[in-house]
Amino acid sequence: MTLETLQNRLGYRFADTKLLLEALTHRSFGLPNNERFEFLGDSILNCVMSMALFARFEQLREGELSRVRASLVRQDALHRIARDLDLGEALRLGEGELKSGGSSRPSILADALEAVFAAVFLDGGFDAARSVIDRLYVPLLAEVDPRRPSKDAKTALQEWLQARKVALPTYVMVQALGEAHAQEFEVACEVPKLGIRTLGRGPSRRIAEQQSAELALTALRAK
Amino acid sequence: MTLETLQNRLGYRFADTKLLLEALTHRSFGLPNNERFEFLGDSILNCVMSMALFARFEQLREGELSRVRASLVRQDALHRIARDLDLGEALRLGEGELKSGGSSRPSILADALEAVFAAVFLDGGFDAARSVIDRLYVPLLAEVDPRRPSKDAKTALQEWLQARKVALPTYVMVQALGEAHAQEFEVACEVPKLGIRTLGRGPSRRIAEQQSAELALTALRAK
Repeated sequence: MTLETLQNRLGYRFADTKLLLEALTHRSFGLPNNERFEFLGDSILNCVMSMALFARFEQLREGELSRVRASLVRQDALHRIARDLDLGEALRLGEGELKSGGSSRPSILADALEAVFAAVFLDGGFDAARSVIDRLYVPLLAEVDPRRPSKDAKTALQEWLQARKVALPTYVMVQALGEAHAQEFEVACEVPKLGIRTLGRGPSRRIAEQQSAELALTALRAK
Repeated sequence: MTLETLQNRLGYRFADTKLLLEALTHRSFGLPNNERFEFLGDSILNCVMSMALFARFEQLREGELSRVRASLVRQDALHRIARDLDLGEALRLGEGELKSGGSSRPSILADALEAVFAAVFLDGGFDAARSVIDRLYVPLLAEVDPRRPSKDAKTALQEWLQARKVALPTYVMVQALGEAHAQEFEVACEVPKLGIRTLGRGPSRRIAEQQSAELALTALRAK
């Protein structure tokens, strides 16, 4: 894929295409590569998603906003967008990575996409990066259904663990916070065998459990 | 303190001071309060710090940038800035919180400061929030010395645990990644009694240990 095509798909034209090229360069290719860009792009993405969710879901509380955001910035979501862009075809990888299928590896694609967001910021400023991200995330944001929180997080965690033959997690009520009319519950999700203990919060015990499961899943996927 | 004085100290004048007022309203006071603003402000702060560190420390790798950023966005740092602004005097707290000294509680002050950053963004856009944050962070950024990484993180973690009579952490080498000339080490910091296991990375085992200690400390402080 040419850089021309990629820029069309991103809906952004670089003044300095060297920045885009650096964003597409995996560390296996040499220096300079996209590792520092990824650091920056990750936090720009987080920020833009926070803004989008804050504006879109006026009824959601902090804990729920965090949970939804986590589902949008994790590797799965980024990988899906990168795949739709055919980003793999534009990557610059070292020979070893290339031969072992690096250009379709979810982690490499997700990192490169974050790096591309940073490159747009460095080239055109925050608002340029924000509109590229907003545009690419239209389909994923449309799927967000905050009222059906993570019915899927506990199920997804269970499936993840079963696939690896690890005992199911236990959910432990840690504390109830706040006054009676606005209570908040804190629940720990524990998977001792994998050294995981995450804390979820929410206006009900069920939502707190879902959040803790979501965080556990994020931690396990990142391992 | 009047909102006038606070705006002078922030170096920003609100078009809509209702936003500032909402940022200063703790949940104990009622609704609307600053919880949702805090969600947004936290990620704006993270993003602005990433930009500042990315531009300032061209030699730092991703893991080191993350470590330095963590030290700048954690409660201690925010509390210090909030104290310098006398933010506590401007807070709106419920009666119970007020009597129990809520206006000088580090977590309440840190959260409110993040909420103020969100209010500036909502009132004046990203660049306005960025310049307020950059300005307030001048003293803290000046103190950052990335070459002496977190000699202090391991020490600080040890002191934190000793003060609570918890056994010292163990550092376990998890894996070495990458090729010989650009290896990266992954180390786990474990505090089993408190259910903590964090992973640090870095170009040397020592730096990976420091990073894992930093993350453990962040997790413990957030508990």
